[in-house]
Amino acid sequence: MDAHPTDVSAAARLAGPDEAISQEELALAARNHGLPLEALRYEITPPGLHYVLTHYDIPAADAGTWRLEVRGRVRRALTLDMAALRSFPAVTRRVTIECAGNGRALLSPRPVSQPWLVEAVGTAEWTGVPLRTLLDEAGAEPDAVEAVFTGADHGVERGVEQDYQRSLPLAVATGADPQVLVAYAMNGDPLPPQHGFPLRLVVPGWYGMAQVKWLREISLTDEPFTGFQQAVAYRLRQDAEEAGTPVTRIEPRALLIPPGFPDFMSRTRVVRPGPVRLEGRAWSGRPPVTRVEVSTDGGGSWTEADLAPPDSQRWAWQHWHSAWTATPGPHVLSARATDAGGHTQPLGQPWNRGGFANNLIQRVGVLCCEADA
Amino acid sequence: MDAHPTDVSAAARLAGPDEAISQEELALAARNHGLPLEALRYEITPPGLHYVLTHYDIPAADAGTWRLEVRGRVRRALTLDMAALRSFPAVTRRVTIECAGNGRALLSPRPVSQPWLVEAVGTAEWTGVPLRTLLDEAGAEPDAVEAVFTGADHGVERGVEQDYQRSLPLAVATGADPQVLVAYAMNGDPLPPQHGFPLRLVVPGWYGMAQVKWLREISLTDEPFTGFQQAVAYRLRQDAEEAGTPVTRIEPRALLIPPGFPDFMSRTRVVRPGPVRLEGRAWSGRPPVTRVEVSTDGGGSWTEADLAPPDSQRWAWQHWHSAWTATPGPHVLSARATDAGGHTQPLGQPWNRGGFANNLIQRVGVLCCEADA
Repeated sequence: MDAHPTDVSAAARLAGPDEAISQEELALAARNHGLPLEALRYEITPPGLHYVLTHYDIPAADAGTWRLEVRGRVRRALTLDMAALRSFPAVTRRVTIECAGNGRALLSPRPVSQPWLVEAVGTAEWTGVPLRTLLDEAGAEPDAVEAVFTGADHGVERGVEQDYQRSLPLAVATGADPQVLVAYAMNGDPLPPQHGFPLRLVVPGWYGMAQVKWLREISLTDEPFTGFQQAVAYRLRQDAEEAGTPVTRIEPRALLIPPGFPDFMSRTRVVRPGPVRLEGRAWSGRPPVTRVEVSTDGGGSWTEADLAPPDSQRWAWQHWHSAWTATPGPHVLSARATDAGGHTQPLGQPWNRGGFANNLIQRVGVLCCEADA
Repeated sequence: MDAHPTDVSAAARLAGPDEAISQEELALAARNHGLPLEALRYEITPPGLHYVLTHYDIPAADAGTWRLEVRGRVRRALTLDMAALRSFPAVTRRVTIECAGNGRALLSPRPVSQPWLVEAVGTAEWTGVPLRTLLDEAGAEPDAVEAVFTGADHGVERGVEQDYQRSLPLAVATGADPQVLVAYAMNGDPLPPQHGFPLRLVVPGWYGMAQVKWLREISLTDEPFTGFQQAVAYRLRQDAEEAGTPVTRIEPRALLIPPGFPDFMSRTRVVRPGPVRLEGRAWSGRPPVTRVEVSTDGGGSWTEADLAPPDSQRWAWQHWHSAWTATPGPHVLSARATDAGGHTQPLGQPWNRGGFANNLIQRVGVLCCEADA
């Protein structure tokens, strides 16, 4: 019997009631990585601390031979090398990007996939060409409705061999705010390989699946894209049979920098009695965040934190802080963000089969105790 | 009853026979990260792809106020700021560093700790001052036997609150080959926070636990250091009661770049029938690697690979490659390194309670099949 790529590729599934993390989930956790939560201290996430999720392999790429094709329902197809892309006026935007699957491993039942806890986020300054500039240059035909983006990463997923592809409605692709970027620099340097070298999409306010890395083609289409990553994956569904609704904008979330110091294995924090500054970052794909509240009793009561106003970088996270007087004993710390649209974080899990857009409130276990003599 | 840091810190343990990865192990896997194996293609690992293990938190550090103290059994105690360190003649060395716990999660029974598979490695060019230069400047007293290195990272581990500390015998600390570095740059840039900004130790040939990050003190002592990371952790033991032997030099290992393309979830590889180039890197803490063999049948038979000769950078990994003609069906690919001292990689697991220095041969599952029509 002939072998097929589908032989190594299983259907999506939920973990059983007592099923712990599998070797396959662990292999993904070892490759990909989150933001160590103490790195929330940096307004701009330094290289290597920003979260990374790669569906397949990080492709080998040569900036000298890289070409971006703009084609499909356009009046003039374009083939752009890196020099051509750099010849357009560049813009730089500070953007917070979060993985759509952030929080998945805390769900019950747990969707079996990349097992994020709460740390799949980061903020960078991305520099590139506005996508609308390139589409103006190419000239969209009147019947164009979507832009389909193709990356150079290739693999199999739930039985489907594919290049990574996602689309955006043309109105989003050419929108003024947020402005979608075709980016070639991160924090002032060429993109690192794992962030899409030499070229990627940056869609402010959207979850990570929209931010196509290793971008090699943009194609305008006269009908909605129905590829795997658009119509099968990244849908909000309660049942496997549903068509579901697409994952788009980032739900509001606040994270706090775990105070004190950790135990190596449990990551439980130790703080001393007395004043403790609690601080962190909060963001939403429908900015700004308008309120952050803090709880030091596991969500029983909440205090409003001091929240930095949204500045000109409205697609980036906002800093917040709050004072706490720690008393001896165990505590559970949490923070909760609410955005301008009134969306807030739930205390109960927002469950769906993919574990997407899940902004369950963070819980940080802390033990307050005196220093040993 | 008073709370103590020990209340959040459990003893070392082995996983039960059917025990899968715990949430605590997952939290470590989400924070720390390995080298995605396709990144073995880079001779020098780009920032963010080099493995990272942080015992506690990445400390906040200000290069402007950072001081390195050199003290203890020296004739002249030194307090060095970054400018003073940069005023010494700098050296740059290409060094492969591997975590002592690499491979741990593949062991049976599995020691419960950071659950590495095979990817905890990376190679960088480190620039700094030879440690022997600083110790010459301070002048070791005749009774000095060890140098103890203290990092700024602070936490609790198996009940012991501590700054991260490790020692080296004075002969190693002042040795000519390998030359230990007090490094302030990685690949030509200031150290990233997660790699020890602004200052770290680099001990070529030794596992990662010796490479003290966020280095703030070097103290010469007249007796061997017995701190936690030296006398309790990082020992090779079969039984918990043994004193054990210290973990020091890196055991030989070869890794191959998984060929073809992966399934997202299983990471199984798909290749097409015909010629496939197999390649990867090999290293040893007792360099050079003198032989790499490749198996395409799960270790049943072995073929010698073409191995790059050790160059002047003898503390860095060596490239190897081998030709394979893939035939339809499933295969298991492996590579095996042997070093100049005749040390090689075992087919059976080299087990100890900490899961240290475990260089079990890598196994890469591959399915060879025709492209679907």
